[in-house]
This record gives sequence, C-alpha cells and structure tokens, in this order.
Amino acid sequence: MKAEILTIGDELLRGEIIDSNKSFLSDRLLSLDIETRFHTSVCDDPDDMIDAFRRAAERSDVVLVSGGLGPTRDDLTCEVLARTLGRKLVLDEDALETLRAFFRNVGREMAENNAKQAYFPEGAEILPNPIGTAPGFLVQEDGACFLCMPGVPRELYRMMDEQVLPRLAERRGDGRVVRATLLRTFGMGESNLDEELSDIAASGDVVLGFRTSFPDNYLRPLARGDSVEEAERELARVCDAIRERLGPLVYAEGDETLPAVVGRLLREQGKTVAVAEACTGGLVAERITDVEGASEIFRGGFVASSNAVMTRLLDVPEPLLEKHGHVSDPVAGVLAESVRARFGADFGVATVGIAGPEDADGDEKPAGLVHIAIAQASGTHADHFVFPLDRLRHRQITAQTALDWVRRALLGVEITGPTLLRRRGGGAPPAPG
Amino acid sequence: MKAEILTIGDELLRGEIIDSNKSFLSDRLLSLDIETRFHTSVCDDPDDMIDAFRRAAERSDVVLVSGGLGPTRDDLTCEVLARTLGRKLVLDEDALETLRAFFRNVGREMAENNAKQAYFPEGAEILPNPIGTAPGFLVQEDGACFLCMPGVPRELYRMMDEQVLPRLAERRGDGRVVRATLLRTFGMGESNLDEELSDIAASGDVVLGFRTSFPDNYLRPLARGDSVEEAERELARVCDAIRERLGPLVYAEGDETLPAVVGRLLREQGKTVAVAEACTGGLVAERITDVEGASEIFRGGFVASSNAVMTRLLDVPEPLLEKHGHVSDPVAGVLAESVRARFGADFGVATVGIAGPEDADGDEKPAGLVHIAIAQASGTHADHFVFPLDRLRHRQITAQTALDWVRRALLGVEITGPTLLRRRGGGAPPAPG
Repeated sequence: MKAEILTIGDELLRGEIIDSNKSFLSDRLLSLDIETRFHTSVCDDPDDMIDAFRRAAERSDVVLVSGGLGPTRDDLTCEVLARTLGRKLVLDEDALETLRAFFRNVGREMAENNAKQAYFPEGAEILPNPIGTAPGFLVQEDGACFLCMPGVPRELYRMMDEQVLPRLAERRGDGRVVRATLLRTFGMGESNLDEELSDIAASGDVVLGFRTSFPDNYLRPLARGDSVEEAERELARVCDAIRERLGPLVYAEGDETLPAVVGRLLREQGKTVAVAEACTGGLVAERITDVEGASEIFRGGFVASSNAVMTRLLDVPEPLLEKHGHVSDPVAGVLAESVRARFGADFGVATVGIAGPEDADGDEKPAGLVHIAIAQASGTHADHFVFPLDRLRHRQITAQTALDWVRRALLGVEITGPTLLRRRGGGAPPAPG
Repeated sequence: MKAEILTIGDELLRGEIIDSNKSFLSDRLLSLDIETRFHTSVCDDPDDMIDAFRRAAERSDVVLVSGGLGPTRDDLTCEVLARTLGRKLVLDEDALETLRAFFRNVGREMAENNAKQAYFPEGAEILPNPIGTAPGFLVQEDGACFLCMPGVPRELYRMMDEQVLPRLAERRGDGRVVRATLLRTFGMGESNLDEELSDIAASGDVVLGFRTSFPDNYLRPLARGDSVEEAERELARVCDAIRERLGPLVYAEGDETLPAVVGRLLREQGKTVAVAEACTGGLVAERITDVEGASEIFRGGFVASSNAVMTRLLDVPEPLLEKHGHVSDPVAGVLAESVRARFGADFGVATVGIAGPEDADGDEKPAGLVHIAIAQASGTHADHFVFPLDRLRHRQITAQTALDWVRRALLGVEITGPTLLRRRGGGAPPAPG
C-alpha cells in the first residue's frame, strides 16, 4: 500500500507556515506499516490541484489530503476533487444539520458561506469533525482512496486517529500487524537515551524511534507481528525492557502529559498542591490547572516578578535572607513550606532563580541558576541546577522539574533533577533536554 | 518565474522530522517575487527521484532541491540528477581540494566516501558551502534551472542567501518587486474579517491572505510593484486601509505577540500590572512574564483553584459575595482593585468564571461564563462573556482578552471583548477566534 500526502493552501507555498501536518500524517501511517512515498503541496489553484489529484490517483493507493475544506472562497478541495473525478457536488442533509447544530451550540448564527461545507463529491463517505465546522470525507476512485481532512492541526489529528486510521487498517488486511506506542521521558538527553537503549531494539520486528519535545524526550517503540496478539506481546516486552532500564525517567505512555500524571496521582491519593513561583512566572500553576478537574488538586499560588517580591509576599525571615540571599536552597525551602501552610496543601512547591544575565551575580549566582523546593508533611527537599538556556526553555525545564518532583514525591521515588543517569562507562553527566 | 521546491530524504517521508526547509525557501523566493507553485518530497529512491526531477523540469522554471548531497550511500541527488539529465558525473578538482582543506582545518582525515562529494553533473556550476562538506550546484537544462543545496538547515540557509538568491535575482531581471507583512488581530472571526475586508484587496497587485492562530487571526497583505518604492507604498496603503477599517482590532505587525505589545506599552509608559487569576490558572501571568524584561512591568499575582479561594485570598467583603456571588462583575472588579493595591501596580486584572460544566449553575451561570475586570487609577471596568469552548481554548481566549484590555487601557481606546464588530447589514455578532 503506497501512500501520498497532499496539503493544499497558498500559505504553505508562500512559506508563511511550516507544514507539520505532513510529518504527523506520515508518522501515523507508519503505525499501520503504510509507507508514505510522496509529499506534495499545491496552492489553492484549481489547475494545480487537478493535476496533483490526477497524479496522486495514478501512483498512490491512499491519498491523504489536508486543507481547503473551510467556508471561504479559496477553500476549493471538495469542488475541485469532484471535478477531477467527474462527479457532482451533492448536499449532505445530515452534515448540514450537524453544521447548524454546531453553530446553535455555540450560540451563533451560521453564516451563509458555511453551508458550502455540507456539499461533497457524489458517493463520498462523510468523516465527522466533532471539534470544528469542516467535516472530512472519503472517496474511492479506481485504485486510489482519497481521504480529505481539515488543515487545522487539532481537527486533523483527531480525524486522522478516530476516522481515517481505522478505515485504513481495515483496507490493508495483509495479516501483518503493527503496534506502536509512545513512552514519555523526562530527565535524560536523546543521545544518552539512544546509548542507554541501544541493545533493546535488536530484532528486525522491533524499531525504536526517538523524538525530542523539549524538555521531554519521547521514545516510540514499534513492533510487528503476524497477529494482533504477537505484535502486542512484542510491544509489551520492549516497553517493559525500557521501563526496567530507565525506571522513573519514563513518566507516562501515550498522550498523558506530565501535569496530567501529577494531577491523576494527586487525585488518586487525595492530595493537593500549592505553588510559589518567582522564576517560572506562573507556568507551574498554569500547567497544573490546565488539567481537567484541577480545582480538586490545586489550591492556589503566588507569582512574583522577582525573588525579592516573593520573599516579601511569603514573609521569609530577614536573617535567613541575609545569611543565604533570596536565591538559595534554604529560602526556596521556606517559600515551599509557607505556601503549603497558607493554602493548607499537602505539597508546596517553590522556584526562585536567575532567569537572565541581567540578574546574574558572578560565578556564585550565574544566569540560569534555579533553586527548586518541595515541602510535604515528611519534610522539605531543595536543590539547585544551572540550566544554561534561553528564557523560554529555562522556564520550561524548571517548571517541568518542579512538576516532576511532585510526581516523584507521590510515587515515593528519589527526587532528582534532569541530569539523572551517568553515561555508561562513566564520564560527564548528560545534558538536560 | 515559477518555482518548485523538492526535498529528498527517507526521514521526511517517515515523518521523523518536520520539514521546515520548504517554508524557509518559499519565504525567501517570495522576497524576489518568485512564486512557489509546488512543494514535493520523495524518498532516497532513484526511480521516485527521476520522476520528480523530470516533472519539475517540465512545469517549473526554478527547482530548488534540498538534501541527498552527503557522503553516504543513500545520498543520491548528484548521481540521479545527472542520470535524469543524461549527463556524466565529473570530478571537480577545486571542490576536492576544498573538501580536503575542510578536513585538514578540523584536524581530521578525509574518509574515502567524502570524495564522492566532489563529483557533479557535467556543466554544473559549484555553489560553495563554507560551513559543511557538501557543496551545492546549479545545472541548467532547457527551461529549468536546478539549484541543489544540502538538507542541513544552517548550511541550506546560508547557501540560499549567499549563493542562490543573488543568481536568481540576476536571472529574473523583470524589475517586479514584492513586499508582504503580517498584521495580527484579536477579536473578530476569520470569515467576518474576510467579509469586512472583501473590498480591500481589489487590485491584482494586492493579495490579502488570512490565517487563524487561535485566539488570534492574522492578515497577510502582499503587494507587487515595479520598484521597491512602489511595492512598499502599495503595501503601506493596504495596511493603512486595514487599520482604518479594523481600528484597535489590529494589535501588532510582524512577529510581535500580544504579551510583547502589552509589555512594550507598559515599559514605554512606565507602568506595571498585577493579576488575580481564578479561572485562567496563571496563564495571564505566564504570558506576561514570558517577555524579556518582564520584571520591570509585572509585579506579581495570585492564582487560585477556585473563585472562592480567590475571594478569600483577596478579602472580598462577605456582603458583596452574598449579593452578587463569587462569579460576578462587582466581585471581579474588587479582585482587580485589591490585587492592584496589594502589589502597588498601575493596573490590576482579574478573571473569575465557570470554566467547566461541573461548576455551571443553570442559565444564570453557564459553563464558559467568565468575568474579567481591569482596575486603574481612573476607575474599574468589568464585563462578562460566555466562551463555549473546551477548557484549553476557554483559558486562552480569556487570558488574551485580559491582556488585550491592558493594551486597550494603555492606548486609551474602548475596552471591549472579542465580539467586537457587528456583521455588515446586522445579524449576530461574530464568534471569537
């Protein structure tokens, strides 16, 4: 089965956006062992689109099309594909009603031009879009199957996983089965993970992919088998081996983010957290509260523009500040304890640090220095790191470390920062991220 | 002059990497008014490559090729392009010497297979690569000019700017110039913007593109002229017309984000802000402090898990809560005033609301309801909106509205939410995003 991915839109050809849909779609096709042979992009131009559709129909079995399904004049995918295939455009009453309901639900009147989104090439199968106005559709023409999806990434992702992949799995049917998953890790760099796990994907039926999504690194084990059971057994074996090797560095499997893991563990254990953020600017709170049902597990927090404002907010004793300075393990510890007490939470987490060169103070307090503390009933743990990164990434890795500490505390494992395992045979610790 | 961009590499078709080279190259071509008509990617497979080269030669005047110039067996661009064009591969002695010198300079011995990188299709013009081992090259065949560059982004970027663009500018020589920009808007939906501005890009020398980046919508006006001055004048004219039509809905031009605009205005006016976030969970603080130099303009803030925790944190009087409830304009106003006073800031901003269905309370307090308030010396403004969106997007649009209010207050324009302009000829207000 040969696949082609065709994305449509002037904005792509003008270089205004980076087209990440193609890599997403190829990656997903690979999970079904379907090889992508061609990526093509064309403008919202009927002649170029017709040419691209024809060519794809000639050379590919599966054609994934993304873009051009919106309500505006330059959204031409339905119309032009219908013309290419010599089919009429027909109104789908169900789709029109769904569209109307969508607008009713959000309390808006449907604009005239939206009705266009309920017309499809004759014989098309509609692919529902529960989170947007543009439904997708499938049309089969001789050997080629066209699957058209919206260009908006979140709508595309969902339609691909829920509508397209199951249909393709059914069509493929060669007996070979592929199973893949995503293991999320935090705390070890990609090349070290690669070295650490080099012996794990030794057989040809197992492939181990790596992907960095700062500050995390994702592992993508993929296993093939002659049956679902065989592929799943093989995949489980590889995942077990990876987890045994990496321990708590693996924080989740699949779509579960670190804040979601922390939220789930807090809920399971009936515990709560509060934060004091002097150098993460609200990012820890923002990430925790981003999770559904956050009000059960997050009590609240303080955000300050500077370490000094934070120590004043939380009444850190003057002698402690004089002895250690605002940016120190003892002060971070007191902040974590204070915020825990103020909000009556089980865990208090604090970050103080030197995010940029303007606040640095020689070798003692270099730019990138951060002190993190976590307070709980059993005591307080504080430690510091230097993350020599730009502002954005400094905040991200600091917030992720703070969240990871809550996870580690909840799991009862060692609380360590993101430079965890030594390289094999000794040597310097690996870099974070 | 029609251009095509062809990128080569198995890793692209497997979705392992997002191919950002294509958008970079298209964007650069646009600066010379060269329109990219096709993006194509193929595997390191000779048959697919030959097919792609032939096709590009037929339909395009300029073909930018990226990838496949390395020393390994699967780097096939030179060999396969030579075969496609019926030319021999010939050794370029200068290129070989440059290659040897490159390795001498870094103190390494040149591997056998690197010598391959000094062979080019007969008649090719070599494009030097000062920062890598793979030189590029140009070959002209009938109407089509192939320009082959390495796939490594930093090598590609430099070769494009230093070697390729000057050659293309010379070849083009028709005097037409293009200028484009990006106008960022917040507060009006895409289809309404489209309608609102339908008469603005009426001439053929002006094109107006739209792009949604929730909760914002971007406009991309592009203008052509016979000289730099003419193109720039035309672009300025269009931008002025758009700004006049949309007023403060346009918040920035180019790369400047809304938090960056707010930060800049605060800094320019020597003012500061503090926040009380009950339903945005720290997102407003996080976005403000994400900007360089945030400590000058952001004082601090409170984040709470619930509206009740927030009203307690900021000592909202009991009678007010009894009369209006936690989620109300008067309470939001008091929160904004309190946080402004506590932090000694010029502006206080507060958000309270019903983010999810679990907190909804009939028609009076539906899910998606949010009250936003901004307090300043001249008084306090509060208003409420219902954003019937998922949790993530609800927070995003609420935080963006709060930030936009600070911008509007700093500019001294009307403080309104994201349902600003009525559609022409009446009708329901447009949806946000």
